[in-house]
Amino acid sequence: MDAVTRLGITLGDPAGIGPEIVAAALHAAPREWRDRIIVYGDRGPLERGAKAMGVAVPDVKLVGSGHGDAAVPGAPDKTSGGAQVTYLEAAVAAAARGELAAIVTAPISKTWARRAGFEFLGHTEMLAARLGASDVAMMFVGPKLKVALTTVHCPLAEVVADLTTARVRVVIELVARSMVRDLGITAPRIGVVGLNPHAGEDGLLGDEDAEIIAPALEEPCMPATLIGPLVPDAAFRDAVHGRYDALVAMYHDQGLIPVKLVDFDESVNVTLGLPIVRTAPDHGTAYDIAGKGIARAVSMQRALALAIEMVGRRAAQA
Amino acid sequence: MDAVTRLGITLGDPAGIGPEIVAAALHAAPREWRDRIIVYGDRGPLERGAKAMGVAVPDVKLVGSGHGDAAVPGAPDKTSGGAQVTYLEAAVAAAARGELAAIVTAPISKTWARRAGFEFLGHTEMLAARLGASDVAMMFVGPKLKVALTTVHCPLAEVVADLTTARVRVVIELVARSMVRDLGITAPRIGVVGLNPHAGEDGLLGDEDAEIIAPALEEPCMPATLIGPLVPDAAFRDAVHGRYDALVAMYHDQGLIPVKLVDFDESVNVTLGLPIVRTAPDHGTAYDIAGKGIARAVSMQRALALAIEMVGRRAAQA
Repeated sequence: MDAVTRLGITLGDPAGIGPEIVAAALHAAPREWRDRIIVYGDRGPLERGAKAMGVAVPDVKLVGSGHGDAAVPGAPDKTSGGAQVTYLEAAVAAAARGELAAIVTAPISKTWARRAGFEFLGHTEMLAARLGASDVAMMFVGPKLKVALTTVHCPLAEVVADLTTARVRVVIELVARSMVRDLGITAPRIGVVGLNPHAGEDGLLGDEDAEIIAPALEEPCMPATLIGPLVPDAAFRDAVHGRYDALVAMYHDQGLIPVKLVDFDESVNVTLGLPIVRTAPDHGTAYDIAGKGIARAVSMQRALALAIEMVGRRAAQA
Repeated sequence: MDAVTRLGITLGDPAGIGPEIVAAALHAAPREWRDRIIVYGDRGPLERGAKAMGVAVPDVKLVGSGHGDAAVPGAPDKTSGGAQVTYLEAAVAAAARGELAAIVTAPISKTWARRAGFEFLGHTEMLAARLGASDVAMMFVGPKLKVALTTVHCPLAEVVADLTTARVRVVIELVARSMVRDLGITAPRIGVVGLNPHAGEDGLLGDEDAEIIAPALEEPCMPATLIGPLVPDAAFRDAVHGRYDALVAMYHDQGLIPVKLVDFDESVNVTLGLPIVRTAPDHGTAYDIAGKGIARAVSMQRALALAIEMVGRRAAQA
């Protein structure tokens, strides 16, 4: 077993659909990768999840805490809320020790995590802080669209204040690097989406496209080609039709509305800029259907498959 | 010929693709409607457009100005810029005299219109002013999505300042009325999209969803059902899957990114709130391909077909 290619999977909230989708994803994982996977979670919920989904309990190494065994699907509480944080902390500690090349995270409940003393907005912020990454970005990788976000969880009214040329440039560079290193696209065409309607229409509809975004495209970013600022309502359509390999979006819904529209639940959330690979499914804990065996595991399966692909590609280049 | 069901089509910029798409749309129009159509434009460009598209010169009444006959496809100038405004003014004057039940507008060049003394931002603003409509809204009607815009041509940074409960309510009512009267949907389910990521997530990501948008949904709007404020990145996907008959979007790209993504060039721009029907194709003058006979006329054909459908339905209710 090679430390460089070992993957951790966190079980997420044991009262959510995490145990089900993790069990299903493990079941679908390539045989040769299963002995490199460590699940950070308790055996109780994982066995329950496997049973609900009608798959065998996967034969993988488990690092549990015992706190999740009493969790009731669909009924999150302080114990399950604490358990999800414990799993994540254990996985991140292993990554910080250099024992993991990737972490795939099942959904946590932000509300219950906060009640359990978790002080971060979400996985991404926690991983960045614990693993010492100053510049990270969220990218969605789906069958039809690859979209990174420049700003993420802020009110629409604050997007403009958060947007800087330096940040746009950082995201462009993170995307370019990941496209080449992780996804094997050797000369990516990266479209950078404008902020305003019609990308500002020569200043008539806003100055940020010309004054904040355009300067971030001035320096070359080899081996990528940068195109933009693109008219937003054409950029996503053109990307789906193959004109760009990836897009850099300026704000949450600019990127997420098209991603959810065309890639639905097949998109994978990838954190760029960490020292390890991190992927996650593109949905939440779904308490309403937890334990029923009806959760769609496709996004988690794709998250695991993408992490395996990225780890494999990085290892081949090491 | 019944004045109530007479339709005007403006030729748009005669140096653009207007003459081609108008000729093609007339060619495809139902025989029984052709003698109720008046084209506001010159014979020269219309004949040239028909020839380029390989269709017969349509046998309809023309109201020309003579200014467009010298227009060169792809080479807009002061004369063609003036001609497009003349056509529009003539059609709007006829509508103001009660002679037209609908106007279908081919694309104008805003730049050249302005140089020709046109003082409006676009067709919509001009029609509203000339026909005395105080509250209008732009709605896109396509095969997969029907989306109205609450704010339209303003920089993203100004969206929040332009958003009021009263305006959201006005757009909801315009959409509800049009769905019933114009589109024959007797009990429309209207989804009202939130402004912020996750529709504000209980105030964590912005207050406008709860404080500005939600109050606009409090009063019933019979016979419509109002649902919202919806999480933006789920709303459009759910609408495509049939959960809503129409959506009210808060800003230009929130609505237009999904519309162009799933309905591409089959969407029709409809102006709600005018005393007449007004439809238009969802694209511009396309000077780069003007005169070549390669323009896709589908959006103009659909704009004409939708205007005919709306006029017919209104006449049946009169």
